[in-house]
Amino acid sequence: MYIIGIAGGTGSGKTTIVRKIMETICNKKVAVIPQDSYYNDNTHLTMEERRQINFDHPDAFDWKLLHQHIRNLRQGKAIEQPTYDYITSNRMKETIHIEPCEVIIIEGIMALYRKDLRDLMDLKIYVDTDADVRLIRNIRRDTVERGRTAEMVIERYIKVLKPMHEEFIEPTKRHADLIIPEGGAKDQAIDILKTYIMHRNR
Amino acid sequence: MYIIGIAGGTGSGKTTIVRKIMETICNKKVAVIPQDSYYNDNTHLTMEERRQINFDHPDAFDWKLLHQHIRNLRQGKAIEQPTYDYITSNRMKETIHIEPCEVIIIEGIMALYRKDLRDLMDLKIYVDTDADVRLIRNIRRDTVERGRTAEMVIERYIKVLKPMHEEFIEPTKRHADLIIPEGGAKDQAIDILKTYIMHRNR
Repeated sequence: MYIIGIAGGTGSGKTTIVRKIMETICNKKVAVIPQDSYYNDNTHLTMEERRQINFDHPDAFDWKLLHQHIRNLRQGKAIEQPTYDYITSNRMKETIHIEPCEVIIIEGIMALYRKDLRDLMDLKIYVDTDADVRLIRNIRRDTVERGRTAEMVIERYIKVLKPMHEEFIEPTKRHADLIIPEGGAKDQAIDILKTYIMHRNR
Repeated sequence: MYIIGIAGGTGSGKTTIVRKIMETICNKKVAVIPQDSYYNDNTHLTMEERRQINFDHPDAFDWKLLHQHIRNLRQGKAIEQPTYDYITSNRMKETIHIEPCEVIIIEGIMALYRKDLRDLMDLKIYVDTDADVRLIRNIRRDTVERGRTAEMVIERYIKVLKPMHEEFIEPTKRHADLIIPEGGAKDQAIDILKTYIMHRNR
């Protein structure tokens, strides 16, 4: 079993990289663990309290469960991956059954934030994309998919995304084994990762 | 044929990475082209004029010859690699005969500086090491190998190495396909590169 962590700011192109790796890997069983699925269970909070949550802060995540699940997979045990409802800002009842795989990819903005999680990884990758490119992707995504105005996205970017990125995400770059500059466009880097996953000798 | 460029500041650990890749690649013919071998021919200059040369500036290199040699190798032609004498600051008469190889590694502080050279590369790597770590390596190397005092190294670092790094080397990072943080220590990154060189399908 081989565990890969892929971190990087919002709009960095993490998901594209993971998707491209998945598309090209044949003959290997790969499971993707999105960190987003491990937001805290907020059942005990009112909707007003949930609205106050900073989802770009490490405290928003259920690190204990994520760590336990990765440990379980590593030990060859299946897990029930939680699912998350962004409308109620709460964990849903449904879970996704995930069998232990040859390759596990943990993907998320703070995938490299916690040492105990990093210690479970065989390979740590940080996707490093210019802040302006990430902002552009956020504006485009949120105006199209979430019906927000550019100004709403920019305000949230300045107040939350940027400071959280600089405090909690950017510093995790130094834990990476490899940095992929400028996200999704980099077919060369994806090709290298794919080849490594397919051929590494352990 | 596959051409890899490896750039990074002085003391970044480029050479260690190249050496480790070379040590572990069997069954492939690899040639290393150190950019340092391609300093200008300074025969027409007096010793005083040679002492004025800034060897950390792009103008110190014979880019035309380097480019022509890489093109030759790519076309399957052998080259006569120049050699350089650091005492006379001039090219020596001796050359090194290099046959075209399966893998060519171009290694040097400004390996990614010129577009025409980058365009010949299949993979571009930047070794990104903290400035303080690079300074420490420079102090240790130059006090031991070149008999300089720490203060001499520091003075040269502040006057030449640091500004040249920031102007000409650091900006080439954005041309890289992959960034290796913190040089020589990163066995994971070296392992990935090695695996890629051995197994890539072209």
